[in-house]
Amino acid sequence: MRDSYHETLDGITDDLVEMSRLAGAAMERATAALLGADLALAERVIAADEEVDLRQSALEAKAFDLLALQQPVATDLRIVVTSLRMSADLERMGDLAQHIAKIARMRYPEQTIPYDFRPVITDMSRLAVRIVEKTGEIIAQKDVKAAIELERDDDEMDLLHRKLFTMLLAPSYRAGIECAIDITLCGRYYERYADHAVSVARRVVYLVTGEKVAGWRR
Amino acid sequence: MRDSYHETLDGITDDLVEMSRLAGAAMERATAALLGADLALAERVIAADEEVDLRQSALEAKAFDLLALQQPVATDLRIVVTSLRMSADLERMGDLAQHIAKIARMRYPEQTIPYDFRPVITDMSRLAVRIVEKTGEIIAQKDVKAAIELERDDDEMDLLHRKLFTMLLAPSYRAGIECAIDITLCGRYYERYADHAVSVARRVVYLVTGEKVAGWRR
Repeated sequence: MRDSYHETLDGITDDLVEMSRLAGAAMERATAALLGADLALAERVIAADEEVDLRQSALEAKAFDLLALQQPVATDLRIVVTSLRMSADLERMGDLAQHIAKIARMRYPEQTIPYDFRPVITDMSRLAVRIVEKTGEIIAQKDVKAAIELERDDDEMDLLHRKLFTMLLAPSYRAGIECAIDITLCGRYYERYADHAVSVARRVVYLVTGEKVAGWRR
Repeated sequence: MRDSYHETLDGITDDLVEMSRLAGAAMERATAALLGADLALAERVIAADEEVDLRQSALEAKAFDLLALQQPVATDLRIVVTSLRMSADLERMGDLAQHIAKIARMRYPEQTIPYDFRPVITDMSRLAVRIVEKTGEIIAQKDVKAAIELERDDDEMDLLHRKLFTMLLAPSYRAGIECAIDITLCGRYYERYADHAVSVARRVVYLVTGEKVAGWRR
């Protein structure tokens, strides 16, 4: 049987996994709200972000208590400190999903995303959700190999992001300035979401190997 | 004379103040590069971001050693843990200034910002720099009153940000989609920069009073 110290430490990992699950669900629904001009769903995503925030606060409190009462050293200390940073990334990912839901809400009952942009937005969202699902697995399994492979998914996100700009700047673009602003911001939100997920995965590599991944900071 | 433990703790505060100074200088120069289509200056801002990153790494290492070797409790522990979070915000502010410099570099030798948008961009940058200067003071002096007053500067930033969108959506806007994308992204960078600074100031309030400021999460 594990003692309460190690139970708390494992509990912090479980919280991070749960936060990635919530952030993934938020992004999936936010995109559905955006592409479906679904106000009720957008409102649900916006309200649900509080749960991610509460999870983070609870994790911070748990980590703080562990530091204060158990004074972990070496690897355990690194886990606690790094978890604080990972939880901040995951909390921010929840915010970014919320931002997309807020754009859907602001434009309702209009469609925000013009017809020809729907495939690339769908691709960006699917990729973002795939990345966060992998990140959750990487946290749970401490899977360094998968974490390194995640960089490729992030490159794919950058390609999609560039494609979005190419489409906006094409002479055939006719959807106007307001749409261009919305698309620019949504594109930025998906891209940042993936960046945060990759940053979380990199921290897992750091925890397991003690090595910072090249391109750690972006 | 102070012992080495308290010297390290004070050193962490000094590092945060220095990081705000660097982030402020970066934003001031990035905007000058943007409005002056100044490639050399943009390159200098982009290169200088490494110094902010190094400062943050050094602060993290210092905080980690303090946690491992001195096992601080109560207020001191809160200072160390909160400083880690504040340094992450300040590091990100450096990135955001760098993003603005990168837009200037990408558009060189063209002017990125059309003539009639220059005043509002100038105002956003000045406000951002004023906010980070105040944040540095707030960290150094642990000035709760000034931290609370900073919310008003942040409201002003939100107003300027909205003004930017109003101008982009005005029927008189003629500068095209590429400009609209650049302006949207720059606006977002200034606004996020201010958000991070305000978040740092709020953490000072938390450190001093133990209370989280309303609207802590945004």
